[in-house]
Amino acid sequence: MKCRTCGAKAAVNMRHHRLSLCSEHFLRWLPNYVQRTIEKYNMFTFEDRLLIAVSGGKDSLSLWDILHLLGYQTEGVYIDLGIDENFLYSQKSFKAAVSFAEARGLNLTVYDVKEMQGEIIAETAVRTRRGRNKPCSVCGLVKRHAMNTSALKGKFDVLVTAHNLDDEAAILLSNVLDWSLDFLSRGYPVHPAGPGFSKKAKPLCRTYERETAAYAVLSKIDYMQEECPFSTDSKQIYYKQFLNQWEDRMPGTKLRFYNNYLKALYNGAFPVGQDNKDVLSQNLCPNCGQPTQTGGLCAFCSLYIHE
Amino acid sequence: MKCRTCGAKAAVNMRHHRLSLCSEHFLRWLPNYVQRTIEKYNMFTFEDRLLIAVSGGKDSLSLWDILHLLGYQTEGVYIDLGIDENFLYSQKSFKAAVSFAEARGLNLTVYDVKEMQGEIIAETAVRTRRGRNKPCSVCGLVKRHAMNTSALKGKFDVLVTAHNLDDEAAILLSNVLDWSLDFLSRGYPVHPAGPGFSKKAKPLCRTYERETAAYAVLSKIDYMQEECPFSTDSKQIYYKQFLNQWEDRMPGTKLRFYNNYLKALYNGAFPVGQDNKDVLSQNLCPNCGQPTQTGGLCAFCSLYIHE
Repeated sequence: MKCRTCGAKAAVNMRHHRLSLCSEHFLRWLPNYVQRTIEKYNMFTFEDRLLIAVSGGKDSLSLWDILHLLGYQTEGVYIDLGIDENFLYSQKSFKAAVSFAEARGLNLTVYDVKEMQGEIIAETAVRTRRGRNKPCSVCGLVKRHAMNTSALKGKFDVLVTAHNLDDEAAILLSNVLDWSLDFLSRGYPVHPAGPGFSKKAKPLCRTYERETAAYAVLSKIDYMQEECPFSTDSKQIYYKQFLNQWEDRMPGTKLRFYNNYLKALYNGAFPVGQDNKDVLSQNLCPNCGQPTQTGGLCAFCSLYIHE
Repeated sequence: MKCRTCGAKAAVNMRHHRLSLCSEHFLRWLPNYVQRTIEKYNMFTFEDRLLIAVSGGKDSLSLWDILHLLGYQTEGVYIDLGIDENFLYSQKSFKAAVSFAEARGLNLTVYDVKEMQGEIIAETAVRTRRGRNKPCSVCGLVKRHAMNTSALKGKFDVLVTAHNLDDEAAILLSNVLDWSLDFLSRGYPVHPAGPGFSKKAKPLCRTYERETAAYAVLSKIDYMQEECPFSTDSKQIYYKQFLNQWEDRMPGTKLRFYNNYLKALYNGAFPVGQDNKDVLSQNLCPNCGQPTQTGGLCAFCSLYIHE
């Protein structure tokens, strides 16, 4: 297999794009591809101050690297969730994020859940009886709130997350299985800001996980390679395996699935009707000021405060 | 496993319904379940004359048996496609359909493709270069046209097909992968009549393939057990295997997937917009009088007539 650009030995073969590239040209191609996604969905401009949610893994570090190299104004935020025995998983992830930022002279702030809320997510999950062994739903809730809080506090223009195509396609498959019109009507890769919440964008939404991994390896980014110890056997992993089988048989399936969904969404499918809730609730939590679908405390504040 | 109704040894265990039944009570339960589907979607009434499209397989013969026992006015139509060497597959299927009808004193008419069009579908596929080795797309087109023609000629109120839940879920999955709004907006299990086409209904749309098979076996219907020799490795079989894996892991998945889709569809998801064609074209083919999306000959007549 040869690089389409220069004819040298290819380092990455992307059957879904019918494109093989050598290391050098792949490292040029991917930022270009991400830039095209940013423009296609009007995600942000070079004038915007971006806050990148950084976990220390391949996706978020590759994304940060790409946006930085493209010339965007970026800072990072690391949410310290206190995961694993002696927080080993979180510590390793944090170290990867810090090394990356320091090597490039980029600013990284930390949102320490234990410090802010008085307990780590595993403790919150047990106390609130929301998944004793798997705090994934509490974790998602806390992360979303912490990211939004950080973006608002720092007055960033856009909160940027590193969800890749594999993530988005798996979430989509799960929402399609349930035919959740509420979720299906909100699957945009960019959400405008509103009262109590920051603008959000996912520039890797059309980038395969394999590609961010290749980017991290080829550009020698020292990322956290371990998976979260809680994520084994989660539903999302199952949907991903499922889509991978499909992709193996018909390269490009994931991209087609996600792209065609976005096309349908932007063309007015899933109108907000009687059966799906308002896309964005107008109620704000009396404690934190972020949106909530009830009149009372938001789901995050309800974890810690009893009305 | 015991029958929920009488406590005898269960013959059928339906994990998706959390229901086990003995042979006797399963043979009573399924017609009842089909009747509820007919009523839920206003498919037809006891006043209607129904034409059942009969292939000789377990689905169509079980459906015909059930509708006949429920007291509906039924006749059958068998489309002779001339499949397999010396038409062996078609001959066996036909024999099963004829024996079934004769044993019950029911009327079965035949639409012989060779007689009507001068060639079998495999020949048409080769001549028109639409799948030399797999005439499946030509076969689908010819069958739909032949069924509609038969229903219109016989002035039946409703054309009834035996598509089961596995069929419908597989088609849905394929349409979801493409996000074909045109197809997704038309997935109703019942379609009203219009100029040039008969009313159509699928009373088995919520019945698992396993259930129609169990019904055929337990009620001693002598059905054609072989699969169509052309259908091996078709896309639809792949989607079915996929859904079966899902179902194994989470019993009820297929039903949930299809039911929730219908709920969304009836609630107005997938409005007919600029990106999807008119749900029903108003153009009629100048040769056969059936609908077509172009102004000229319909896809079926184009197979045989050159303008």
